[in-house]
Amino acid sequence: MAHITNGVEYGIHCLLWLVYVDTEQPSSRDLAELQGVSPSFVAKIFPKLEKAGIVTANTGVSGGYRLAKSPEDISMLDIVDAIEGSKPLFDCKEIRGQCAVFKGDPPRWVTGGVCAIHNVMLRAEKSMRDTLAQETLASLSRTVGQKAPRDFDVRVRSWLQERGQARGRASLTRKLGRPPDAVS
Amino acid sequence: MAHITNGVEYGIHCLLWLVYVDTEQPSSRDLAELQGVSPSFVAKIFPKLEKAGIVTANTGVSGGYRLAKSPEDISMLDIVDAIEGSKPLFDCKEIRGQCAVFKGDPPRWVTGGVCAIHNVMLRAEKSMRDTLAQETLASLSRTVGQKAPRDFDVRVRSWLQERGQARGRASLTRKLGRPPDAVS
Repeated sequence: MAHITNGVEYGIHCLLWLVYVDTEQPSSRDLAELQGVSPSFVAKIFPKLEKAGIVTANTGVSGGYRLAKSPEDISMLDIVDAIEGSKPLFDCKEIRGQCAVFKGDPPRWVTGGVCAIHNVMLRAEKSMRDTLAQETLASLSRTVGQKAPRDFDVRVRSWLQERGQARGRASLTRKLGRPPDAVS
Repeated sequence: MAHITNGVEYGIHCLLWLVYVDTEQPSSRDLAELQGVSPSFVAKIFPKLEKAGIVTANTGVSGGYRLAKSPEDISMLDIVDAIEGSKPLFDCKEIRGQCAVFKGDPPRWVTGGVCAIHNVMLRAEKSMRDTLAQETLASLSRTVGQKAPRDFDVRVRSWLQERGQARGRASLTRKLGRPPDAVS
């Protein structure tokens, strides 16, 4: 499995839709179906994004998710960390003190400070994280937006509005026990 | 599991011993036991390092491994790639064309070129790889060497020479069916 998993890929794609929305508050199912991916998988990702302060959730029939802050203030690193949790690039087993020459009693010069190999890996990880921190949801959205035709955001909002209305109708039907169109 | 696994950690530690050796050609078992780690695990790593042109192997009783080139010419990235193989940081599933708005027929502007999310991940991976490429086995060895007392390399070489001699004696015993000291 790759270090940055497909949960991040799905999460970023769905978050990009939240940059487009206006008053709509799509559910994680709406976002998953808009993106054409598994709703149950996406349903597990959004609580992590909410916990990390990237999205906020409103309950109720018309409730759903929206971005908790400006997309300028949400970096790719924020999203990766929210979804992946604490997952180091390299998990040092500290074997440096096990050299047979030390006969089970490694001197302080061996075990003090960070292992030199671990240190290289930490620097590599920092380089990776710095790059992810430089890209925001806003800049990514602009990159995608430059490719899209002018009416694309309208079509996306329209799709989400229809979904929201369908949810409302379905809820009313459940409440009244008959189609809302039949309400006199 | 971390992206860069403990096979790399074990491999680099063992390769660092090969920077110290002079005429000795330690086996992978010698290197593993010098480092105090599993010989069977290290035995699986060295053929990968050999295939990547980082070490060369000589067969025979006194045969073993030595560096195939100067430690200045062996980067951490060379070692990681040799041991881990091709393992991307992020495995893009290309879900961008699955948006429901496209109704199963994504336009060219969506699917052309590299996915914008994948592109960010590729840049993050490049940053990580560039950092690993900048550090060599020689520079890492110097970092470790600066911490070690002056006689440390002598002690390591002495340990390896004793192991080599023990291997030679054991082989002669097997060949003659009696201890080599008893050979007239």
